[in-house]
Formats: sequence, C-alpha cells, structure tokens
Amino acid sequence: MSQVVSAEQRLLELGIDLGDGPTPHGAYVEAVQAGNLLFLSGMLPIANHKPAFVGRLGKELDAEKGREATRLAAMNVLAAARKHLGSLDKVRRVVRLSVFLATAGDFFDQPRVADGASELFRDVFGEGRISVRSVIGVASLPLGMPVELEVTMEVEG
Amino acid sequence: MSQVVSAEQRLLELGIDLGDGPTPHGAYVEAVQAGNLLFLSGMLPIANHKPAFVGRLGKELDAEKGREATRLAAMNVLAAARKHLGSLDKVRRVVRLSVFLATAGDFFDQPRVADGASELFRDVFGEGRISVRSVIGVASLPLGMPVELEVTMEVEG
Amino acid sequence: MSQVVSAEQRLLELGIDLGDGPTPHGAYVEAVQAGNLLFLSGMLPIANHKPAFVGRLGKELDAEKGREATRLAAMNVLAAARKHLGSLDKVRRVVRLSVFLATAGDFFDQPRVADGASELFRDVFGEGRISVRSVIGVASLPLGMPVELEVTMEVEG
Repeated sequence: MSQVVSAEQRLLELGIDLGDGPTPHGAYVEAVQAGNLLFLSGMLPIANHKPAFVGRLGKELDAEKGREATRLAAMNVLAAARKHLGSLDKVRRVVRLSVFLATAGDFFDQPRVADGASELFRDVFGEGRISVRSVIGVASLPLGMPVELEVTMEVEG
Repeated sequence: MSQVVSAEQRLLELGIDLGDGPTPHGAYVEAVQAGNLLFLSGMLPIANHKPAFVGRLGKELDAEKGREATRLAAMNVLAAARKHLGSLDKVRRVVRLSVFLATAGDFFDQPRVADGASELFRDVFGEGRISVRSVIGVASLPLGMPVELEVTMEVEG
Repeated sequence: MSQVVSAEQRLLELGIDLGDGPTPHGAYVEAVQAGNLLFLSGMLPIANHKPAFVGRLGKELDAEKGREATRLAAMNVLAAARKHLGSLDKVRRVVRLSVFLATAGDFFDQPRVADGASELFRDVFGEGRISVRSVIGVASLPLGMPVELEVTMEVEG
C-alpha cells in the first residue's frame, strides 16, 4: 500500500457516476459491517432497479457483453459501500471478490469477463490494493442475469 | 441494532425445535470461530441425518418446496451455531448468507426460495439484525439436495 | 487445539513439495490479509502454470481423478499462503474451505472429492485444527478445470 489514493477523487477523474445503487428485495440488507470487514450482498447488473443484462455467457451473451455487465455489477458494489460508509475513502481495500457467471455449454473465458470488475476496483482503489478473486461458472442467477459479485472489503475502524 | 432480542426466547415463542443439527461426514467441522466471526459449514436440508428434500428447483421441486427446504437448512445453521456457542443469545447477527440452489432449466425465482432462510433469521434475531445475501443457482449439491447455505455470523468475543 | 503442530515439519515428513504455486492472470493477487484473516484467490489444479486436470466430474473425470485434482488445488492453496506469510507455521488454522466442483449430469459424490483437500489440510495442520466446509457442484470453471477452492485462514497477527 505505497500511497493513499482517494477513491472518491479517482471516481471523479474517471467520470464515473455510481448512481443510487440497488435496493434489497427480501429480508436482507445491502451491507453489514463486522469489525473492520464490510460484507456486501451479491451485486447484479441492475440499473434503475431493472436488469440491464439478461442471458448466459456462451449462449445469449458474448464475453464483451459479459465484461460490461460485470463492470455494472461492480459499480453497484461501490454504490452500496458508499451508501453504508458515507464515502469510499473509508475503504482500505477490496479484500475478496467472488465472481459468479451464468454460463452455458463450453464457455471457459470467465477470467476475461471477471476483469470487468477487477479492473474497475484497481482503477478506483489503486494498483497496490487489489483483491483476491474466485471465478465460478454457474447454472443460473436471479432474474436470468449473467453475473453476480460477492465482495468483502476492509474498512476504517 | 435498536433493541436486543433474545434469540432463544424468540425460538420458544415461535415454537421451533431445532433438533440436534447435522454431523460432519468428512474431515471438517460444523463451526469454526476466528475472533468475533463464526464460520459455519455448508448447511443442507437434512433431518434425522437424512436428506429431507431431493431434486432440483424448476424440475423435481417447485418454489414452495424450495422455501421449505431452505427453511430446514437454516434451522440446521442455527442448531450448529447453538452447539458451538452454547446459546444463540451469543449471536450478534448473521453477517453473510450465501444461498446455493440446485436449479434446472430456466428457474429464476431464487430470491423467493432464499427468503425461506432470511425470514427465519429475521424472526429469530430481529428486523434490525438482518444479513447481506447472495443467491446463486448451481448445477448440483451433495446427495442431490436442492439447497445449501453458507453462513458467517458475528458473535460475542 | 490440543498441541501445536509445525505445518512445515509435517510437510517435510509427508514428503510434499508444494512447488512455486500459481501466478495471477488478471487484476488480482493470490493472498490478502485483513487483521488475522488471510483470504486466498480461488485455487485451481494447476501445475507448472498449466491445467493438470481438465473436464467435468461425472463426465470426463471420475471421483478418483477429482480427488487428485482437489488435492493439487489444495497444494496451491498452501503454496500461495506460504508465499504470503513466509512460513506455514504462521497459520493458526484453515477456517473456511469452499469447494466448487464442475459436475455434469447426476454426480452427487462431491463430499468424497472434497476430502482430497480436507484430508491434506488435516494432515498438515493437525486433527484439532480442521475447517468448516461447503461443497457445491457448478456448471464450469476457468479453462475447463474440474475444481476450484476458495479458502480463508486464520493467521498470527
């Protein structure tokens, strides 16, 4: 962690508007903090409270669309974290990123799709604070969306 | 966390008997505590050491059966946590709930099924202490069961 | 945790050479520590930077091959942890092990395959320090490999 990057400043420089973020549909919340860890609900490629991408990778969607969907889901991660913390400058780092991708047939290009999230987090929090990652191809995700991100962050105490 | 709810008292009021909970089949344990976090093994809809529900959602089982199976798996989460802690009153909250559902074809009603666990936890621990959640449709689960819950709790130190 | 086992000593006694471990392919790292928790990237059955096992359980690979693949992925977990910590003797225990298995059709023998990892960890860290575990059958994993392990460890502060 060589130098402290202001995540909020970086978002401005990148011209990214996170929007309002998602709202829970069920008996759960978007973020829970325990000690210095912030746990976030599974984030989907939702915009304006509607699925922005529907379909499976290797069938209805190609890798490039998958990257875009993953980047959008990652923006929702950031929006939910900001809503909980007040500012993304309280994030020390993304600790864990699990990328669940709805795949069909023999789609094995998951890492490239997952980079849609990893690269956004790297751009916002800096090269020295990137996360561990798992990428898993699954049968189906809520409302037929192609990607879901499960994220854990380390935050200021 | 407005007011402290006694989880054990709530279970009594709800008339829920958790039973003995599951026993590990392999080189693992049901619960491990690290600091204030309690990690639990993947919990299945098992009763009396046997699968109580078998099949996939959208094929052999409908959403209503899925909800029942999910509620049973959530009862096993509580039984395992109580066995480790002595009392569920030592649980500060369920922090993270990951719901893995065995789905077939185009079953996208996962959130409703997942509420079978979320609503039990809310009823036991109270509205102010609900968790984050991920819901993921997968290819298969051990012994052909329809649901597996991966849970992390925050507990008294 | 009756007696402290030296994990590095146990590896020597077992005649296990962990090799160099995997290298990340993307904007992520293999290990991130937050407090006393060490989070590791999803580990695959890779040797010499190439997939050593390709295929799905219940189709191209049987349970025995699956066990071997899972053991190799678990060796990569240990290699990555050692690289981060300097020595595996700084590991207090494996806390959580999530085993994702690429399955086809009706393969429900996941627990036996997962033991390929659980038994290695038990042999290295000792009976008193085994983890919780989830086992999940998924549609596909990166590069068509049959298993991916998501691991969290507790380590010395």
